[in-house]
Formats: sequence, structure tokens, C-alpha cells
Amino acid sequence: MCHKQRGDVMLIKSNGSERNVSSNGDEIILIKAVVTTFGSVFTHFQLCAGKTLIVLFKTDGDDDDDYCPLPFLLQVRGAPAIAIVGCLSLAVELRAGAGGDDPVTFIRESLCHLTSARPTAVNMGRAARELMEFAENESMEKNSEQLRESVIAWIEDMLERDVNDNRKIGNYGAQHILSGVPRDSVTILTHCNTGSLATAGYGTALGVVRSLHALGRLKRVYCTETRPYNQGSRLTAYEAVAEGIPATLITDSMAALTMREMDITAVVVGADRVVANGDTANKVGTYQLAIAAKHHGIPFYVAAPSTSCDLSLESGRDIIIEVRPPEELTSINGVPIAAPGIEVWNPAFDVTPHQLITGGIITELGVFLPSELQAALTGRLTAL
Amino acid sequence: MCHKQRGDVMLIKSNGSERNVSSNGDEIILIKAVVTTFGSVFTHFQLCAGKTLIVLFKTDGDDDDDYCPLPFLLQVRGAPAIAIVGCLSLAVELRAGAGGDDPVTFIRESLCHLTSARPTAVNMGRAARELMEFAENESMEKNSEQLRESVIAWIEDMLERDVNDNRKIGNYGAQHILSGVPRDSVTILTHCNTGSLATAGYGTALGVVRSLHALGRLKRVYCTETRPYNQGSRLTAYEAVAEGIPATLITDSMAALTMREMDITAVVVGADRVVANGDTANKVGTYQLAIAAKHHGIPFYVAAPSTSCDLSLESGRDIIIEVRPPEELTSINGVPIAAPGIEVWNPAFDVTPHQLITGGIITELGVFLPSELQAALTGRLTAL
Repeated sequence: MCHKQRGDVMLIKSNGSERNVSSNGDEIILIKAVVTTFGSVFTHFQLCAGKTLIVLFKTDGDDDDDYCPLPFLLQVRGAPAIAIVGCLSLAVELRAGAGGDDPVTFIRESLCHLTSARPTAVNMGRAARELMEFAENESMEKNSEQLRESVIAWIEDMLERDVNDNRKIGNYGAQHILSGVPRDSVTILTHCNTGSLATAGYGTALGVVRSLHALGRLKRVYCTETRPYNQGSRLTAYEAVAEGIPATLITDSMAALTMREMDITAVVVGADRVVANGDTANKVGTYQLAIAAKHHGIPFYVAAPSTSCDLSLESGRDIIIEVRPPEELTSINGVPIAAPGIEVWNPAFDVTPHQLITGGIITELGVFLPSELQAALTGRLTAL
Repeated sequence: MCHKQRGDVMLIKSNGSERNVSSNGDEIILIKAVVTTFGSVFTHFQLCAGKTLIVLFKTDGDDDDDYCPLPFLLQVRGAPAIAIVGCLSLAVELRAGAGGDDPVTFIRESLCHLTSARPTAVNMGRAARELMEFAENESMEKNSEQLRESVIAWIEDMLERDVNDNRKIGNYGAQHILSGVPRDSVTILTHCNTGSLATAGYGTALGVVRSLHALGRLKRVYCTETRPYNQGSRLTAYEAVAEGIPATLITDSMAALTMREMDITAVVVGADRVVANGDTANKVGTYQLAIAAKHHGIPFYVAAPSTSCDLSLESGRDIIIEVRPPEELTSINGVPIAAPGIEVWNPAFDVTPHQLITGGIITELGVFLPSELQAALTGRLTAL
């Protein structure tokens, strides 16, 4: 094992068998996130309650330069994981005494920075607002050191709450899908990665798959490659193989054919943001899957915690979509895979209109039709 | 320039500036095909009328092992190009005196081998049948040497006929698309590669794009990456950049979003086989594009020479679809891009039902609705 320091984050390179390492013997809370480049495959973030947010890399090579590229938050993917890791990184800094006599100002500035990193994912913004409100209330009656402690405890609670919410999503989703199916087992098609590598743990859409598998009712899951970043072939495939979930990889272009030929019971995807009318922003390709599912009469589900829902926006037209660099399409690991000079359009997300979400929106509070979502969540969500 | 012999085919590696080279000063007929591996990018096949089918490689490196992998015919892609290159390779052998006193038997055995290499593409089978019938008739009244000469002449005519047919396809398609459009310029979405690198020249679907561009009526063409072999990003993008056609590369997963956001006038794709009712086998992903086009009310066209039509099959259910190795999805240039151990489904083609071909089928004989195809072609096509 080797390690080096980058900013406030201690990077430790692991061969994959040293997942519970701690530099100081303190209790470790494990959360996971993933670098988005090809090659350097998996990253595990660990919060040492004592001191440091440790990033464990699992790589095949021994090159010290395999460490994650900056900026830090762009390494982390999956809307729920972005919020969790962002808040945990703040907890690490607070544990080290950051903010001095004015932790509230430090917390406010840190959260502002974290929120601006990935505009499409709503979870970070919501967590930041809730945390800021909590910190301001606490600051009325606590000194700086007590405030830091209670904010850290709030963040650690958030991690636990998120994993529990995901398990509820998995169970609600599995029951809903099975309720309409007389067959013994079901076949699911999913997109991108929404598993334990994209969330605090267990996963959203892949959590539904996990629950079906745990119930012995999953025949197979088909996972799309998810170009241009291949989250399906790298991450969902990894989680499936690691847990013995029967899974088959296809290209994004094969999804409609798979729906026609492979007796798909339901399509289940995650969400970066669900707005008041049920329109859903998610990884690019989701919209196309929803159209194909509708064409084949296959129920289309979105699985997301209520923290991914944004009732402040009326429709998907108001969602800002991140457009990313051309190089994500034209090269892999720096090796060109496209003709030089070609122009590229690389939107990272698309918006699926609520009319195409025919199965429902699976949350930790239950499964709702898009038309039921606003009423179901009103009063239960912090405003954004 | 270096060269080496492989089987009956002389391989010559070029730096790209020596395209008109001839080893013996004879007239050269240039046709093009493309290796299907990443890395070794473009292959140009040249028939030296005097002697040898020369394969020119354009590569970036100097490695002699960059030459094409065997079997020979699998390097060539695009249904029309498969037929052309297959027949030209036979012409080369006949020019060298192959078949001795019994060229008919030699021709029959060669065509049998060529036809079995790529079952989905129908063009090779039709060319083989037509050529065999011609050779048998000629053999009634000609000696072996005369027979070889007339078969070679037939094959060279076939090459010229194919390019002319493609130009007709381009013109018919362009006029048909423009006839329904009041706007000055149109935006096309296409899939895979159907240009001069997949045909004898000019192209089918990309021939339509070329014709629109030549008329000054093409605003832009969007080309899908076309996973898993990236024919769109490597080949269509290359042809567009080389000819100054305004083009934008997208992933396959972005096609529906592009239809919604980019004011697509029509989707135009090629075909490996069109059957009697208009059902069309083409590169995997075509079916999904047709569903998305229907959803958006965008006309969906198939562009193919009549030689790609197979009236002997009633519907697309009878088409055999080639399933290719998992490695095409799980690695690029031998570098893994998917989690180890994941199962893969890799169908090379899919079948688009005629109901989704809403624009029409563009042939060298005109543009037909799927329901008109059989009547239009009956009596004008050799049986298979």
C-alpha cells in the first residue's frame, strides 16, 4: 500500500483487500464513490471518524499517478453519492478544526463551493440547505467546538439515513414490480450505475434489482454500457459480478432489441432530479429507453430518494442540463477512437417527460405515479 | 512503403499519399473497404487490372503487424462492399489463371466460400448467383481463357454499376426528403457507416447526405457513434470531415434527445437486407432509432440498392441475425473497458419492422413505401 496527500484528502492506494484500513485505529464509516475515468476503476471513500477522509483506489497497475484527477467532486458520481461525499469531506475538515471561531461562515462557504460543482444533481443542494439551517440553529446555543461536533454527527446520521432509504426503495420497487407479474421471476433492464457505487450504499434502481435478487425472484438484469462514460459496463457490471446477480451487458443501441427479444418485465433507472410534474433528469439515454419501453408496453420506473425530488420546478423544461467535453466521446484513456476533427455534442443528462414514466416513481416513501408525486411529497421535503 | 503477401492478396502499407500506386503500371480501379478493428483505421482495396488485388493500409504506426486480421472477408464491412470486394478478389485470382481448364468449378467453389462469410448481408449471395449464371452461360461457347476474361469484365462492370446506383439513391433520397420540406436546409440523423467506405463508392444513406450537401441544402448531419464497433465515430465522421460536410458525433444513447432538440428533418440509414414486406435488417441500433423517430413524428428512411432486397423472405422474422463475440463490447484494442466476468449479448444487427419505415425505402429505382416495394421490384431482381 502506498499513499500520498492531495489537499485535505488522504489518498491510499489499495490492492482491494485492505478495505478496513484506518490510519489511526478510529472507527471507519465506509462509503463508496467512483472515479469517472477509464482505467483507474474503483474508488472507495472512507471517513475516519478521527481524522481524514481516505480515498481507497483499486487499480490494476502500480503507477502512483493512477490517483483521481481534480477537481475532487467531479470524481464522485451518482447524485446521492455526490451529496454524501461532499458533506463527508466537510465533516473531515470540521474534525480537523476548520472554521476556527466562526465555523458557520466556513460551513456556508464550503457548501456553496460543493453545490456549484454538479448543477444537475439536486441532492447536494438540498443537503447543503438542510445542513446550513441545522448549523445556524445550533450556533445559537453552542460554542464553536460543540457546533463542529453536532454538524459532524448530523452528517454521519445522513449517511445512515440514506442507506436505510435505499433499502426501502429497493423493497417498495421490488414489491410493486412483482405485484403485477404472475410469473415466478422477472427480467429487468437498467441504465447507468445506480448501485452502492453511486449512493451511500445498496443503490436506487440497482437497489430494486438487489431486492428482487434477494427475494429469489430475479431471472436476469440487462445493463446498458452507458456511453460515453461506460458506467454500466464498468460499475453496474462490477457490482453484479461481485454479488452473483445474473446480469448481461448490452450496448445502449441494443436496448430496444433486448426489450423485444428478452421478455423484459420492467425498465428501472435512477434520477438526478425529479421535478413537480414527474419529469425526470437522468443520465443521457434514459429518455430513449423510456420511448422504447412505451413502444413495447413495458412499465418504466424511476427509482430515487425523495431528496432527489425538486418540487420547486414545475416541469423538466426548467432543468439545466450539463454539457460535457467532446473528449469523452472521442477518446478512451487518451487513445483516440473517433476521426480527428469531428464536432461532438455531449449532453450528460436528458429529461424524460412524466408521460413516459408508466410504472411509477419509486421513493423511500412508496411508489407514486408522476401525477401523485407532488401531493405525496408536499410537506415532507425541505424546500430548495 | 512496405508490403507482404498473405494468401492470394498482396498487402501494401501506405502512408496515405500513395493511393494511386500500381505495381505493374496497369490501370487501377479503386474501391475501398475498412478494417473492423480499432487502431488500424482505413484500408483501401485496389484492383490492379493486370495482376493483384492490392490492399492499401493507412495506419499511424510503422508496425508491420498492423495488417488486417483474417478471415479476409470479415475485414470488409458494408453489405455492398462485401459483394464488390468478394467478386474483385475472385477476379484477381482469375487474372492469375486460377481454375486452369475448369474455371467454372473454381468460380463455383470460390463463390460458395465467399457467400458463407457474412450471412446477414444479402448482396454477396445475389452477386454470386448472378455471376454463376453468367459464367455457366459463357462456358457453353467460350474456352477457359475467354471465360476468365468475360467474368473479369462482368465483375468490373458490377463495380461501375454499383457506384452509379448509389448516385441514383443519393439523388432520389435527397429529392424525396426535400419535397416535403418548406425550409431552406435540412438536418439528417444517420447510423453506422454507409458511405464510400461501405460501398463501391458514394454510399447509400450517406450518399443521400452527400447529395443534400452537393445541393447546398444540408444544414448538418448527426452521426451516431455506433457501438460496439464505432463505425459512426471512425468512418462516417472521417468521410464527413474529409469532405467538409457539417457533421456532429453523438453517442447512440443521445439519438432521441437529438431528435427532440436539434430539429431533425429525417433519419436515413442503410440496410443489410430488406425483405418482401419492407422489414429491414441493419446494424444493431437501427430498430431503436426507428422507434424514436416514430415517437417524434420524424420520417424514417432506409437507403439501399435493390440488390440488398430479398423478396424470397416474406418478413423480417425469417432473417438470421449474426451474434458476434463478447470481446467487441468488453475491450477496445485489447484494453478492457468492462468489469471482468460480466456476460454479454452482442447481436450485430436488428430488424426494423416495416411499420416504422415511415419515410420510405430509397433504391436506385426510386423511393417506395414498404407496401409498394414488392410490386416495384418484382421482375427487376434476380432471385436468390
